[in-house]
Amino acid sequence: MPTRLIIVSLLLAFAMQAVAADADRKFINVEPGAAQKPRPLSDAVLVGNTLYISGHLGIDPQTNRAAEDPQIEAKLVMDRVKRTVEAAGLAMDDIVSIQVFCTDLALYDMFNNVYGTYFTHGFPARAFLGTNALVRGAHFEVLGTAVRRQRAH
Amino acid sequence: MPTRLIIVSLLLAFAMQAVAADADRKFINVEPGAAQKPRPLSDAVLVGNTLYISGHLGIDPQTNRAAEDPQIEAKLVMDRVKRTVEAAGLAMDDIVSIQVFCTDLALYDMFNNVYGTYFTHGFPARAFLGTNALVRGAHFEVLGTAVRRQRAH
Amino acid sequence: MPTRLIIVSLLLAFAMQAVAADADRKFINVEPGAAQKPRPLSDAVLVGNTLYISGHLGIDPQTNRAAEDPQIEAKLVMDRVKRTVEAAGLAMDDIVSIQVFCTDLALYDMFNNVYGTYFTHGFPARAFLGTNALVRGAHFEVLGTAVRRQRAH
Repeated sequence: MPTRLIIVSLLLAFAMQAVAADADRKFINVEPGAAQKPRPLSDAVLVGNTLYISGHLGIDPQTNRAAEDPQIEAKLVMDRVKRTVEAAGLAMDDIVSIQVFCTDLALYDMFNNVYGTYFTHGFPARAFLGTNALVRGAHFEVLGTAVRRQRAH
Repeated sequence: MPTRLIIVSLLLAFAMQAVAADADRKFINVEPGAAQKPRPLSDAVLVGNTLYISGHLGIDPQTNRAAEDPQIEAKLVMDRVKRTVEAAGLAMDDIVSIQVFCTDLALYDMFNNVYGTYFTHGFPARAFLGTNALVRGAHFEVLGTAVRRQRAH
Repeated sequence: MPTRLIIVSLLLAFAMQAVAADADRKFINVEPGAAQKPRPLSDAVLVGNTLYISGHLGIDPQTNRAAEDPQIEAKLVMDRVKRTVEAAGLAMDDIVSIQVFCTDLALYDMFNNVYGTYFTHGFPARAFLGTNALVRGAHFEVLGTAVRRQRAH
């Protein structure tokens, strides 16, 4: 497949993504600049009451790389997860499951201190996993699943 | 537990797997050779409208190892995911969430070019994660979740 | 945010976790010592019939580190997953999807031998993924999702 054809296919796919809306699901895209740099993913997909959240990074918008200070990065990544969850009409306390990938396990306690402040209603299930490398120089990548809370009847 | 007993237990478990079918779920196994080399996993499990998809590899059937060319491997792994999803009666566009594990982040753009061609209706949520090693020499392992699309009423 | 305020916030969050119970979900915590060492996570979260299971480790309770023998560790980690699943009122055969993270892929066959004995009704979907490091010296971290089986009608 020649490169030009691949690029055209991708552009078409991205154009379709912008308008496509299946009857039962919603594609969430809140990343600043998502329109300029097409990526083959949605920030999250909402089906019924369940939100599937992409791996998020704590990118400094000025450098387009992970923040140099891991503590700032930890806050940036959680803020981005929050923005995505809220763009879908859900809240952080709707999250039921999280995976944190981290390139340096020595950052575990620091990350927990930041992370813990984003929840007030009982913590999601979570895995904290070492990785040798993440894209864009990140120390953390955070993904998960949320389920919209139902009111008691 | 003596080795012989473990082997017998495993054989029994695999035999039961072949016939077991819980009322509300379906165990999907499409891998060529799955019958010969019992593994303690299903390629996917379908419960209601949700399909839980195992980590798939881009194995060259002739060598039983990952394809040497990562681009061919990327296509092989996505083809295998597709085969599993379709064996369950779903389609690639039903996928809502994907995790890609990759041993070499320099393959990111190449993988995206291959990956993007498998979807037409809006992209799944996704995480692209570095790993230091995958089984059978793979550069990529891809897993995910699909939810069968419901028609508008 | 000053450190003291972070600590107070975390303590408050943990206190709320102990009593909080949203109408539609249940936070499961069975780890011995979970009360003493607050962590910003639940061992599992049950929403409707779906159980989201945290990353579990095979910790030796005497050393609070991973068991030295990986085979013992493999059994310990699966026993812990089982304890969590059963504390939520589900069974191992309700698990539909598993991720195993492992620091040494040479342990693959041994892990499978232990793992295979925990299921009798068809195996969950699964990914077995290399990682360069896990917390507390673990060789394995196991997480997953279970869906309570429904009786045939």
